[in-house]
Amino acid sequence: MEHFEDHHKLEHDYSALLEVAKGIEQPPIVNPYFKKKARQRYSTEEYVQGIRAGNITILSQAITLVESLLPRHYAQAQEIIERCLPYAGHSIRIGITGVPGAGKSTFIEAIGYMITGLDHKLCVLAIDPSSERSGGSILGDKTRMETLVHNPDVFIRPSPAAGSLGGVARKTRETIVLCEAAGFDVVFVETVGVGQSETAVHSMVDLFMLLQIAGAGDELQGIKRGIMEMADMIGITKADGTNKERTELAKSHFVNALQLFPMPESGWKPKVYTCSSVEKTGLREIWGGVEDFLQFTRQNGYFTENRNRQSRYWMYESIDEVLKDSFYRNPAIRDRLPEIEQEILENRKSSFVAAKELLDIYFDRNPEQAQ
Amino acid sequence: MEHFEDHHKLEHDYSALLEVAKGIEQPPIVNPYFKKKARQRYSTEEYVQGIRAGNITILSQAITLVESLLPRHYAQAQEIIERCLPYAGHSIRIGITGVPGAGKSTFIEAIGYMITGLDHKLCVLAIDPSSERSGGSILGDKTRMETLVHNPDVFIRPSPAAGSLGGVARKTRETIVLCEAAGFDVVFVETVGVGQSETAVHSMVDLFMLLQIAGAGDELQGIKRGIMEMADMIGITKADGTNKERTELAKSHFVNALQLFPMPESGWKPKVYTCSSVEKTGLREIWGGVEDFLQFTRQNGYFTENRNRQSRYWMYESIDEVLKDSFYRNPAIRDRLPEIEQEILENRKSSFVAAKELLDIYFDRNPEQAQ
Repeated sequence: MEHFEDHHKLEHDYSALLEVAKGIEQPPIVNPYFKKKARQRYSTEEYVQGIRAGNITILSQAITLVESLLPRHYAQAQEIIERCLPYAGHSIRIGITGVPGAGKSTFIEAIGYMITGLDHKLCVLAIDPSSERSGGSILGDKTRMETLVHNPDVFIRPSPAAGSLGGVARKTRETIVLCEAAGFDVVFVETVGVGQSETAVHSMVDLFMLLQIAGAGDELQGIKRGIMEMADMIGITKADGTNKERTELAKSHFVNALQLFPMPESGWKPKVYTCSSVEKTGLREIWGGVEDFLQFTRQNGYFTENRNRQSRYWMYESIDEVLKDSFYRNPAIRDRLPEIEQEILENRKSSFVAAKELLDIYFDRNPEQAQ
Repeated sequence: MEHFEDHHKLEHDYSALLEVAKGIEQPPIVNPYFKKKARQRYSTEEYVQGIRAGNITILSQAITLVESLLPRHYAQAQEIIERCLPYAGHSIRIGITGVPGAGKSTFIEAIGYMITGLDHKLCVLAIDPSSERSGGSILGDKTRMETLVHNPDVFIRPSPAAGSLGGVARKTRETIVLCEAAGFDVVFVETVGVGQSETAVHSMVDLFMLLQIAGAGDELQGIKRGIMEMADMIGITKADGTNKERTELAKSHFVNALQLFPMPESGWKPKVYTCSSVEKTGLREIWGGVEDFLQFTRQNGYFTENRNRQSRYWMYESIDEVLKDSFYRNPAIRDRLPEIEQEILENRKSSFVAAKELLDIYFDRNPEQAQ
């Protein structure tokens, strides 16, 4: 975005906070006489009432406002969120990560069906900063969850389209507020684990679930650094037919690995489950594990403490993102930065003197004055 | 520090960059006629020449300048560092972490003696933000390394006194420059692992060594999250006498644990060693491992790439620290922050709206203008 002036004038519009999806593109239409039906515009009051009544159409449009790039949409979206906040928070938020092929969609479909049978209302969101909205994300992709999508107690929303991870995470967190106000009491946030997506998801959920498939004994080698330590629960999928033996073996590998990690902050020792979305086995055990975790962490205070910390975390993250944004987009900084990096790499300048030089430029100070 | 005005005037002196140890306090003296000998003052040129000649007295005083709080000392220190930079970099930097009781000092003493016998010049530094200089840090404490301290090829320096970890880390990195210019070709940076000390040390060394003692089979439980994954090498100490069997068992636990982690970026699979500083066993193997690691990472380019990344990291870290410092010390922000945190915790405001409100205050913007 090239509309930045120096930080004193601050014409920049906190794009890190405001960064939203591009408008949804309509597919090309063959019939030239087809008139696009104008999307109905609601007042803030109508949105809020509609959401609270559980009206899915209105909820979807409100989320589209949240994801919109237009400033007037942003303004209304923030009003809606603020008015929904008092009704939010009453759900269990579960993060689900697993590489493509781990059977995430099938798992969510199967366990989602089971959960709604237990009188819950489920909302499935996704974080995938590499998704192209018009192309359809493989996550939260309605076409992959064929029965779930027809279930009136389930709401599925694809990931907001490509943008910074910070932007996608913000929109997802705000979407959770709206979904909770609409009465959804179980929220799944799924991710394939591109970049730092797991960390973002982990920072907005109560329980983080890692899905794995049994490999050739080498399951653990493929896992990204730090993911195992984030997991409150591990599920090994496709425990059906001839694959059962391999999943049991994989389970023992993970159980051993988990013994080697320190006790998590929650105080809850993560467990490993096997399951089959096809044979519908293991799902009740997994959901039982979720409920046990919930009861335990509510009792020892970790649940609330974690949510509070997450709220503060997102405020501090946003502040940090904008402060850095303001600095690194400053034209004088952009000008000088490549040379200064070169000076550091060639040992002509220490990292700290380089930093000070750039900070002097940014804060418009005379170097001698700084001392 | 209460001398901050708003960020436009910027009277703050980048204290995050400048934060240094308090002046060294002299112990109380009984004899009232004892005159403190004035520390000799050198010119920058004399410092640089003295350091390059390997003069330990002059090196020590230069480091004291680096650690000093006084602006004129800071200015001269930076000149000295800048002039020593071209002669720095020619050493192997090794981070050593281990809980108190792991036998770090004894290990450093024993392996230090061996290393100097191989024609190296060793410098032992420490990062311990909780240390009180006048009290004497247990790290780099000369009284605990009784033979090493008399070795003319060894230079030991306690950790700079309590201050922010960022400040301590900066001073240590600058001290490394001076020591390398003075001809020291092996640098140890030790830490007990308070807070994020290991991360700071890891970001300034070529090889990170974790020292452990054999426990009751529970060694791994005590390790802080993420430390195992930082280690390029693990040494299990006190493998002497009746303890040998336990150290072998501990070694197997660590070997198994390491199998479960992904390959590190270096491409070097970390190894586990046992050693006894008392019986002087295992030390040659460990040093052989260090040399193998060096040769391997120099050959595959990781050594240089890592150093470059570290240099850039410290520049970005410093910038980030000052940007945040400027924000959080702003009086209007300090005023508003506690209330805003409360509003978030009580779900009266979303994290993002809270961030935006504070940013508007800081950048002195009218909220409506921001849109």
